[in-house]
Amino acid sequence: MRGDPFKPAARVAGQRADVWTIVNEAAAASPKQPIVNMGQGFFGYNPPEFVVNAAKQALDKVECNQYSPTKGRPRLKKAIADAYSPFFGRTLNPDTEVTITTGANEGMLSAFMAYVEPGDEVIVFEPYFDQYISNIEMPGGKVVYVPLHPPENGATQTTSAAEWTLDFDELKKAITPKTRMIVLNTPHNPIGKVFSKEELQKIGDLCVENNIIILSDEVYDRLYYVPFTRIATLSPEIAALTLTVGSGGKNFYATGWRVGWLIGPENLIKYVSAAHTRICYSSVSPLQEATAIGFEQADKEGFWEQSKKEMKGKMDLFNQIWDELGLPYSDPEGGYFVLVNLARVQLPSDYPFPDHVASRPRDFKLSWFLIKELGVAAIPPTEFFTDQNAHLAEDWLRFAVCKDDKVLEDAKERLRGLRQYIK
Amino acid sequence: MRGDPFKPAARVAGQRADVWTIVNEAAAASPKQPIVNMGQGFFGYNPPEFVVNAAKQALDKVECNQYSPTKGRPRLKKAIADAYSPFFGRTLNPDTEVTITTGANEGMLSAFMAYVEPGDEVIVFEPYFDQYISNIEMPGGKVVYVPLHPPENGATQTTSAAEWTLDFDELKKAITPKTRMIVLNTPHNPIGKVFSKEELQKIGDLCVENNIIILSDEVYDRLYYVPFTRIATLSPEIAALTLTVGSGGKNFYATGWRVGWLIGPENLIKYVSAAHTRICYSSVSPLQEATAIGFEQADKEGFWEQSKKEMKGKMDLFNQIWDELGLPYSDPEGGYFVLVNLARVQLPSDYPFPDHVASRPRDFKLSWFLIKELGVAAIPPTEFFTDQNAHLAEDWLRFAVCKDDKVLEDAKERLRGLRQYIK
Ligand SMILES: Cc1ncc(COP(=O)(O)O)c(C=O)c1O
Ligand SMILES: Cc1ncc(COP(=O)(O)O)c(C=O)c1O
Repeated sequence: MRGDPFKPAARVAGQRADVWTIVNEAAAASPKQPIVNMGQGFFGYNPPEFVVNAAKQALDKVECNQYSPTKGRPRLKKAIADAYSPFFGRTLNPDTEVTITTGANEGMLSAFMAYVEPGDEVIVFEPYFDQYISNIEMPGGKVVYVPLHPPENGATQTTSAAEWTLDFDELKKAITPKTRMIVLNTPHNPIGKVFSKEELQKIGDLCVENNIIILSDEVYDRLYYVPFTRIATLSPEIAALTLTVGSGGKNFYATGWRVGWLIGPENLIKYVSAAHTRICYSSVSPLQEATAIGFEQADKEGFWEQSKKEMKGKMDLFNQIWDELGLPYSDPEGGYFVLVNLARVQLPSDYPFPDHVASRPRDFKLSWFLIKELGVAAIPPTEFFTDQNAHLAEDWLRFAVCKDDKVLEDAKERLRGLRQYIK
Repeated sequence: MRGDPFKPAARVAGQRADVWTIVNEAAAASPKQPIVNMGQGFFGYNPPEFVVNAAKQALDKVECNQYSPTKGRPRLKKAIADAYSPFFGRTLNPDTEVTITTGANEGMLSAFMAYVEPGDEVIVFEPYFDQYISNIEMPGGKVVYVPLHPPENGATQTTSAAEWTLDFDELKKAITPKTRMIVLNTPHNPIGKVFSKEELQKIGDLCVENNIIILSDEVYDRLYYVPFTRIATLSPEIAALTLTVGSGGKNFYATGWRVGWLIGPENLIKYVSAAHTRICYSSVSPLQEATAIGFEQADKEGFWEQSKKEMKGKMDLFNQIWDELGLPYSDPEGGYFVLVNLARVQLPSDYPFPDHVASRPRDFKLSWFLIKELGVAAIPPTEFFTDQNAHLAEDWLRFAVCKDDKVLEDAKERLRGLRQYIK
């Protein structure tokens, strides 16, 4: 007879409280109710009406409520192929070059499950979207980290998110014969950096040289405020190695719908589909249909332009508070997150932080303090770094601006309370 | 530099055409269009109106379109705890003893990911629901098969699904020091067997003796035509080891909604939740809300009684054709699948089966023949057996009766065409 049946597998046994739990706990315990929650990146408003209506209509159709094909509904694959072919500069085949997943998240897991064997290495830039790590470790992969370095003057002046930089020597050194994949994220969460064409070309060339599959997480691909390049478009050799990831949740303000996709060459996509089938079987049918209709109608509705303009407006509206307070931030080139540098904020030396916060880097204390004293929740970005590199981000906090303007104004009003702590 | 970047991981590299592909291919190529599809177990009609309306209303609420908590929406966890507490004979804690997943399928994967380490063994009865196998192999588990033996007279007379039996000596022999989990399925797909209290007690006792976690797949738990026992209710010792799996898709005729759940003791559930978070992050929000409302209102609507009565009516309506043709079937005790024995059907000796069908057991040929000649699709059940035990099922076909009565009548009319082939 075997021993303790309740012992979990190593892949789920980790116990450190994650950032979402800590922030939610602080939010629940704050005297400043209701909290203005700029922590997690969900939208504070509904998907556009034409997409919600499409979902309601799908719910009336028998086949839209039943299992979809494992690779996705033909209508959605076609809508995505049609929408992305112009960006890719060639006609994408909806049946072989697009596959639908349960959010971008499960799509990325499917890609790792498709290509990572135990012991294979996957390169990830720091800071990273936290799910990458467990998704790579699930098939037995080893994460190899390469840091993005913060702007040199980031603590003293507002800088562009472009100034978070990759050291290409560090990247080259990270490549070994075991490197199987690299994960890119542009526009980047949490930095807001849109990787330049030159940066992507250099990364892509390295991957071609070394036979490395590129998993390009482009879930914020409709929200860019500088020119946006897709690495898959840089050369046929790079395209042959690239899987591009998208998210209906991010594109259509519906993070709870769990519709995502991967685009790439047939020989790569087919095993991603195979992995997805083994993980989720198929993805949510009525919301796939609604996402298809979203893509079909978005241009006609002027949705993409409006979406980008609105988000940039929110970003600028919110960031006024930092100019007003004289706190520097990293001005985003894309997405809906802004990193703010709070080095100048002096936390009271006798402030009673709970142990699990006190033991973490300074940004956890800043986050806790803002929630408790001002009632504004933001995310400590060292959670998205290894312990070794956490110091790079310990003065920053991440705010999500995908909220109603009223909420942003409320947050600004509350954040004025910071003034007394700024030295 | 590493070698071929396009080589998939072993876990997705398998190439044998699966049964769904073969059946769909045959259906598309059949001259008898449109095919009457009694193959895959999706419903031929919509979810009940009160549940569809709930989904539409959820789509109007901002928070129902955004990320849900990773363990599920509180309203759904409470609705499930309330609905199942009477069955379990104790008050389930919605926060600690229920977790929401992306369909039962991803729920079961989460359970295997939570407890199976590479090399661990998981016992599965044959025939099995095919996803179990890849789900167990994903974390490196080894499947150990134990057959359910068909009724002795199954080829000559209609028998009860209860007569598919487990040989307890075979089960005992399958248990080793590496046995980590056992998968049960009741009501059973494809057999339609509802395991008796005595059978479950014996299985449960063996698991307690040997510290084996029981994953009880009860997705057809509202469709039973004989008394139905849940193994988790048999003793506190068995309950302590049992994870019970449910499916909103099966309960509410919405297989495309991808809402499932696991119920079990807190110390087991918590790692299932942890695995789920790493796989899908969270599950589809508006349809979780709708499923919650479904559970809240189902009793008042008389839905469960009606659902069971309707499905039993469909089963009896459809099976008349076998009585008429004098072909024996295994009369289901639950669920919506019926296994029919076609040993007496003589296939023309010169019939041109394609190679990938000709090389499979006789049930694949029967399936192909019915699709091409009569325009009725059914599933060859040897797909759900190991090669070694496939012979047990090579004369049977599985029909799904979860279709409109009109479709069932149409199928019966077409199946009359079998008469000329019955010897
Ligand atoms: C960079 C990045 N990738 C992927 C995701 C997950 O997207 P989805 O909700 O479609 O799974 C997120 C969500 O926050 C993200 O920020
Ligand atoms: C026995 C069994 N378990 C699980 C499932 C999957 O259920 P879901 O659609 O909720 O993932 C099925 C679906 O056919 C099934 O037959």
